Amino acid sequence: MRAAMNPSQPVRVMRQPEGAAGDDRVATEEPLEIRVEGRPLAVTMRTPGHDQELAAGFLYSEGVVDGADDVLAIAKIRDPLDPQDNTIDVRLAEGIRADRFASAQRAFFASSSCGICGKATLDNVLRVVPPLGSVSRASSEQLLALPSRMRAVQETFERTGGLHAAALFTIDGRLEVLREDIGRHNAVDKILGWRLLADAVPVDDRVLLTSGRASFEIVQKALVARVPVLAALGAPSSLAVDLAERSGMQLVGFLGDGGFNEYA
Amino acid sequence: MRAAMNPSQPVRVMRQPEGAAGDDRVATEEPLEIRVEGRPLAVTMRTPGHDQELAAGFLYSEGVVDGADDVLAIAKIRDPLDPQDNTIDVRLAEGIRADRFASAQRAFFASSSCGICGKATLDNVLRVVPPLGSVSRASSEQLLALPSRMRAVQETFERTGGLHAAALFTIDGRLEVLREDIGRHNAVDKILGWRLLADAVPVDDRVLLTSGRASFEIVQKALVARVPVLAALGAPSSLAVDLAERSGMQLVGFLGDGGFNEYA
Repeated sequence: MRAAMNPSQPVRVMRQPEGAAGDDRVATEEPLEIRVEGRPLAVTMRTPGHDQELAAGFLYSEGVVDGADDVLAIAKIRDPLDPQDNTIDVRLAEGIRADRFASAQRAFFASSSCGICGKATLDNVLRVVPPLGSVSRASSEQLLALPSRMRAVQETFERTGGLHAAALFTIDGRLEVLREDIGRHNAVDKILGWRLLADAVPVDDRVLLTSGRASFEIVQKALVARVPVLAALGAPSSLAVDLAERSGMQLVGFLGDGGFNEYA
Repeated sequence: MRAAMNPSQPVRVMRQPEGAAGDDRVATEEPLEIRVEGRPLAVTMRTPGHDQELAAGFLYSEGVVDGADDVLAIAKIRDPLDPQDNTIDVRLAEGIRADRFASAQRAFFASSSCGICGKATLDNVLRVVPPLGSVSRASSEQLLALPSRMRAVQETFERTGGLHAAALFTIDGRLEVLREDIGRHNAVDKILGWRLLADAVPVDDRVLLTSGRASFEIVQKALVARVPVLAALGAPSSLAVDLAERSGMQLVGFLGDGGFNEYA
């Protein structure tokens, strides 16, 4: 069913209270299973498209791979039970296979399944991913120009109202890449995976803009990639502010055309 | 640190481009580890408060417990390594302990870690959770009145702009309960857990309203609780529309004071 691979799909809707039937489009949501060397590691509900980037970015932001040299190949699995191609396998470079898969399982376990308090979580992140050093900063003028530049290329959001976007800009405001996904964290992983597959990590001289809120998870992924400036159109969480402060990241929220809040 | 248990926390912000420093509040985000009989099952990033309801609702919407009788006790774990009380343990009723923990692990695995295509996922959900039968429907007039009633009691959102809300209404529009959380799915689980702990599941004569978008996960949780009407202020996803259609759930998106879209 090829239609499922489109970022949006047609639906019949009834507009109320008018009672007018019509055609509309909704954002596509499908599961993607990410395997490493054939072994299932994680499933994420994502919008199809740029799946290789999503897999690469997920493994990078979760600390499994460090650069393009660690990735040998990324390919969809052909399986009659999965006609929608929702399974992808990542083969790692020779020599790091065994220990990297173990570390993959640990990394994924650590981010999604460990039960520790907030402070311990921050300590843990900063132990594995050191704070940023002397880093780039974006000025007010540079930041205020970004939302309209992102909106101009958000095609699927325009049609469905249901997709998050993440975009990478140079410090002086040039758009480098934009990705859309039903999951905020997936849009960020697609960006980071795009950079990794282009052998262009870390991302230590860019502004990462996210259309939604800034959660702990988003700051953590940006920190792994050494992103110095994270800007969100929405609100940050308490843990996002804490981690940004402690890691030396410039964190901006409620970024609009007229102003923003700077938290860290 | 009691402050961390508040739904919002104070932060210092710099409002730009004015350069005005000031005090603001951000939504609290902390991990909660949910254990069953002492064994870790899941961790969710949540806003503290109503943690017993969150744990109960999570186990209910994931298919681990079916009613109040299945839950013997829910208590925070006192641990010097976790001064913020972010670990909670659920003890199940005698006689169902062994098999229910196994089923808990299967249920959690199924929802978060199985790699199957979209169609198979829907088939799987509907095999475990049958479609709704003859069910309540809400009229346009009833639905259009809900958003303003929800906004009126969304206290933390007003202060932080960073929390999702979920609310349960009678079909004729009386607000029964509202919960806020940084995670959309957590707000829904808190609602369902509140009903379960009041020995009031299934929830087969209520409208569930969510402040965000309607994803597959939200429809799935509502279906387990037999909720007949799901309304979202935001957009639905493709898989949410599919599951609502196939399960006979009334699904409404973009609900505003002036109108909404009906999808299924």
